[in-house]
Amino acid sequence: MIKIGIVGYGNLGRGVECAVLHSQDMELTGVFTRRNPKSVKTHSDVPVYSMDKVYDMKDQIDVLVLCGGSANDLPKQTVELAEYFNVVDSFDTHAKIPEHFANVDEASKKNKHISIISVGWDPGLFSLNRLYGQAILPQGHDYTFWGKGVSQGHSDAIRRIDEVKDARQYTIPVEAALQSVRNGENPTLVTRQKHTRECFVVAEEGADLQRIEEEIKTMPNYFADYDTTVHFISEAELLRDHQGIPHGGVVLRSGTTGFEQENKHVIEYKLTLDSNPEFTSSVLVAYARAAHRMYQEGQHGCKTVFDIAPAYLHPESGDELRKKLL
Amino acid sequence: MIKIGIVGYGNLGRGVECAVLHSQDMELTGVFTRRNPKSVKTHSDVPVYSMDKVYDMKDQIDVLVLCGGSANDLPKQTVELAEYFNVVDSFDTHAKIPEHFANVDEASKKNKHISIISVGWDPGLFSLNRLYGQAILPQGHDYTFWGKGVSQGHSDAIRRIDEVKDARQYTIPVEAALQSVRNGENPTLVTRQKHTRECFVVAEEGADLQRIEEEIKTMPNYFADYDTTVHFISEAELLRDHQGIPHGGVVLRSGTTGFEQENKHVIEYKLTLDSNPEFTSSVLVAYARAAHRMYQEGQHGCKTVFDIAPAYLHPESGDELRKKLL
Repeated sequence: MIKIGIVGYGNLGRGVECAVLHSQDMELTGVFTRRNPKSVKTHSDVPVYSMDKVYDMKDQIDVLVLCGGSANDLPKQTVELAEYFNVVDSFDTHAKIPEHFANVDEASKKNKHISIISVGWDPGLFSLNRLYGQAILPQGHDYTFWGKGVSQGHSDAIRRIDEVKDARQYTIPVEAALQSVRNGENPTLVTRQKHTRECFVVAEEGADLQRIEEEIKTMPNYFADYDTTVHFISEAELLRDHQGIPHGGVVLRSGTTGFEQENKHVIEYKLTLDSNPEFTSSVLVAYARAAHRMYQEGQHGCKTVFDIAPAYLHPESGDELRKKLL
Repeated sequence: MIKIGIVGYGNLGRGVECAVLHSQDMELTGVFTRRNPKSVKTHSDVPVYSMDKVYDMKDQIDVLVLCGGSANDLPKQTVELAEYFNVVDSFDTHAKIPEHFANVDEASKKNKHISIISVGWDPGLFSLNRLYGQAILPQGHDYTFWGKGVSQGHSDAIRRIDEVKDARQYTIPVEAALQSVRNGENPTLVTRQKHTRECFVVAEEGADLQRIEEEIKTMPNYFADYDTTVHFISEAELLRDHQGIPHGGVVLRSGTTGFEQENKHVIEYKLTLDSNPEFTSSVLVAYARAAHRMYQEGQHGCKTVFDIAPAYLHPESGDELRKKLL
């Protein structure tokens, strides 16, 4: 059994707990939190420890799955823990990945541990499909669409507007753009042509709805470059209809082959997810399995999804995989 | 530059030639054939050699891409050549993969070469997506649909019928079945519910069309279990409208997460290919790059797509990939 520790117990940590419980070759050692451990109630009866206890339990943990945020937690936490543990994180600030990789790689190598960073679906599975697509069809174009799904950052941005009580924002791919890519037309698409934004807003009583709508639609970076729809709804409706955290998206590689580039090919990878954090957690747990196996083989240093042979992710042996899945 | 040799010059071999010419880090050493080399005209000016010359050119070839057939060529050819070369093949008889793997593995290890077998899209990219899907969503169901595309085996079966001059058979996924899987309904589908078969037949003059149609539709294994449509067309129409070799298909993993399995997720991987052999060749060439790199690192033995870390497939460095694609 692979012994897993969870660092941080929000949506992602809870998802990892759930995924480990459903994995036959894994067991949970504990959850580690910076909060008061007594205030954290896990779903299963896995014990909760204070974060500073984690180093005492080094020998009871094969892989730590780090479930903190990319902005404030992981840049420091992954580096600190990678020195003493095999770790997997979901660091998703694309622009800072090279820096994070270098820091974690240095830490991991001190005691020959293995770390896998930026695991999830984007970065993660979507990145994999961008790589496979370019490697197989070097003459071609990449497209990534996100949604339909809840964007936490955009929802938060709306909540910061005056007289807004709560809000939920959905990112939605433009179907016509998707279809054009699927047809191999290789369109050049500006921001507005790729995604629309739909907002469900609970305003305070007597609020100036027109002003709120205007503030949303003209907000730079978040909404100004998109066609945005704003719906004002009641708090009860928000609770009833918008509590899920669905997401997903599509990665496409549209390319050509042939001596005259006369043959078109489209590779499409599409995710439709009821729960963004639970799916991301499931990816993290599969890569925790890989981290453990690669560590047992003596591999060390920082890796990403690009460096992990697929067979490491699946509980069955190479023989079984060749027989059943190849 | 990675020096590539091509063994066999049919549709697949020509596709490899084309893909190598479009790869900036590769060059073609030669084409090897069992035919009279003078009778083989390559598209570029790459030299053609008799098959028995290949061993003399060992030092001029980094990887041999084997473009023979799975029924008669590869079971013997891959094993023989794997002893002296790094090789990549597209062996696609699913049931015989374990045996082929064992034979090629033994041969490859004699002189520490690397071989990658069963490369293409099914087996190949589809297999990868079955593996990733199961590893990430262990609670779930697998679905594979093929088409719309030309099935060579089914076209040949029709051609063997009396008074048939030529034929082309398309395998077509049933849209309603696909949609049900995409909706996460996890349908149990019998053969007839997954694919239909559409046949374009050129009959001899005065042939008994009704008998031919009946023979097709009732042919065991090939057609009897499917809803089959037969169109009789002229030879001119066949030449005009059915010369392409399109194919493709969809692999889906439909699974659940959550403590009560309450959240559904669907992973879909879809290929839409104008030319089945050229796309397969492009996959072979990407894996030839991986074979060369892994050999340079001292790895050896037989591998499949499951054993190849994705980064080996792409010409750019790990740094570049993390920066641009992760």
